[in-house]
Amino acid sequence: MMPADPLDLDALPAPDAPREVRRFRRGAWQSALDDLAEEVPVALEFNGISHAVMLATPADLEDFALGFALSEGIIAEPGECYGAEPSVSPQGITMHIDIAARAFAQLKVRRRNLAGRTGCGLCGTENLAEVLREVAALGRTRRVSRQAIAAAQAALVGNQALQRRTGAMHAAAWCSSAGEIVLFREDVGRHNALDKLIGALARTPGWRGKDGFVLMTSRASVEIVQKAAQAGIEIVAAVSAATHLAVKVAEQTGMTLVGFVRGDECVIYTGFDRIEGSV
Amino acid sequence: MMPADPLDLDALPAPDAPREVRRFRRGAWQSALDDLAEEVPVALEFNGISHAVMLATPADLEDFALGFALSEGIIAEPGECYGAEPSVSPQGITMHIDIAARAFAQLKVRRRNLAGRTGCGLCGTENLAEVLREVAALGRTRRVSRQAIAAAQAALVGNQALQRRTGAMHAAAWCSSAGEIVLFREDVGRHNALDKLIGALARTPGWRGKDGFVLMTSRASVEIVQKAAQAGIEIVAAVSAATHLAVKVAEQTGMTLVGFVRGDECVIYTGFDRIEGSV
Repeated sequence: MMPADPLDLDALPAPDAPREVRRFRRGAWQSALDDLAEEVPVALEFNGISHAVMLATPADLEDFALGFALSEGIIAEPGECYGAEPSVSPQGITMHIDIAARAFAQLKVRRRNLAGRTGCGLCGTENLAEVLREVAALGRTRRVSRQAIAAAQAALVGNQALQRRTGAMHAAAWCSSAGEIVLFREDVGRHNALDKLIGALARTPGWRGKDGFVLMTSRASVEIVQKAAQAGIEIVAAVSAATHLAVKVAEQTGMTLVGFVRGDECVIYTGFDRIEGSV
Repeated sequence: MMPADPLDLDALPAPDAPREVRRFRRGAWQSALDDLAEEVPVALEFNGISHAVMLATPADLEDFALGFALSEGIIAEPGECYGAEPSVSPQGITMHIDIAARAFAQLKVRRRNLAGRTGCGLCGTENLAEVLREVAALGRTRRVSRQAIAAAQAALVGNQALQRRTGAMHAAAWCSSAGEIVLFREDVGRHNALDKLIGALARTPGWRGKDGFVLMTSRASVEIVQKAAQAGIEIVAAVSAATHLAVKVAEQTGMTLVGFVRGDECVIYTGFDRIEGSV
């Protein structure tokens, strides 16, 4: 489990900051204070070895570290993460993540396979074959109604405090089968928002036993589907479209993928049977 | 210069594809054919060495290869790219990019500095200090009116053919100082759309001598600002918000950064003097 110590929030930057801008509105230029989303390089370091740098919003970083480790398959369960501590430098934030020996040994093998070629790419990837990693098939234990998805989408805006202030934030929410928003995380990056949500879920006792689904304010890209599948999430709904590759991977893992959740409408791409009344 | 040979378009997937979905609309479930955006792993290989894999829309890949090489500072000018040829495999597309010996030698040094640590992160980055690379200060040769920015934004939707079909595409446009859209590229990723635009601009004789600006359908993140600055673009306007880090980097490079371009309104974050009448 994660340690009980909270992050040293005083040392971390706030998730947003005011800045003077020139704004044209109602026919005239004016000076104004705009609230800008922070975007900070966050290095994720596992047992002292630097793994990746993401541009992220400096909030909920303990959730982010745990969620990234889970959604990227670096650890197999939350208990393999013993803790995550931030350190702040002028270049950004480093999350020092302490993982189980088994997980670290496996990560070293994965990284050694990348060596020789050095370099980099998409989250550790410079080789085509590594992009679409194997994800185990999902269970078929969840069901939800389109009314619940519509209710969650309607409730989402009220939760998006940072988005309302900055206009630059994605959000990921865990919603009950009644359409209530149970957990909610924001970030400038949609993958980061989902990782933070996955980390927060993993720290919530008993969440795996409860019905529910993930709702994203963004599009559903293949990385969203892969991360959610790795975390065992059976139903993902997105406010915008899904890509073709996201749909193909959702189908392979047996995920229910829903898009264009807007008002009363939605589109189901895969796993129709989990949406009540749709077939 | 790039070779005259066109890509073998027959071998490449289309940028979008139809797929059967279940849609809830006007009170009823229906089967429908939805047009989905393709998202394909694209490996960028320089002189035979794999460099990065991006998830991208398989269109304008020659522009993408040239634009990425320029915007990431791998080559200093378009003439250092001798050609880019795709090869297609079941895993994705590899762009084989042929660059000048000088650029390749410099890339090898950059990659060797990353070795030892192996692994990876954000486009070649696993180390905080490497995220914000040095970008030379921009010239101050461009000016534009807010009316031109508004006109370009109004014209943008008419150009977004793939977005209209799929709902999952970002776009980057090069616009004249009169607000006309001169060049336009779409991609599932906003950075890719900008790279494709930068590549297309680099292949357009004389564009550097002409006034104009870049308009993005997305938010302005720090990576957008860095790529545009590296390509010598003085003015970037975005339909959505800018992040704080994007604004700081825009300020450092002397870029004019505009956000929330909507109807008659906009917000200038930096470089007010390039927007006529704003100060």
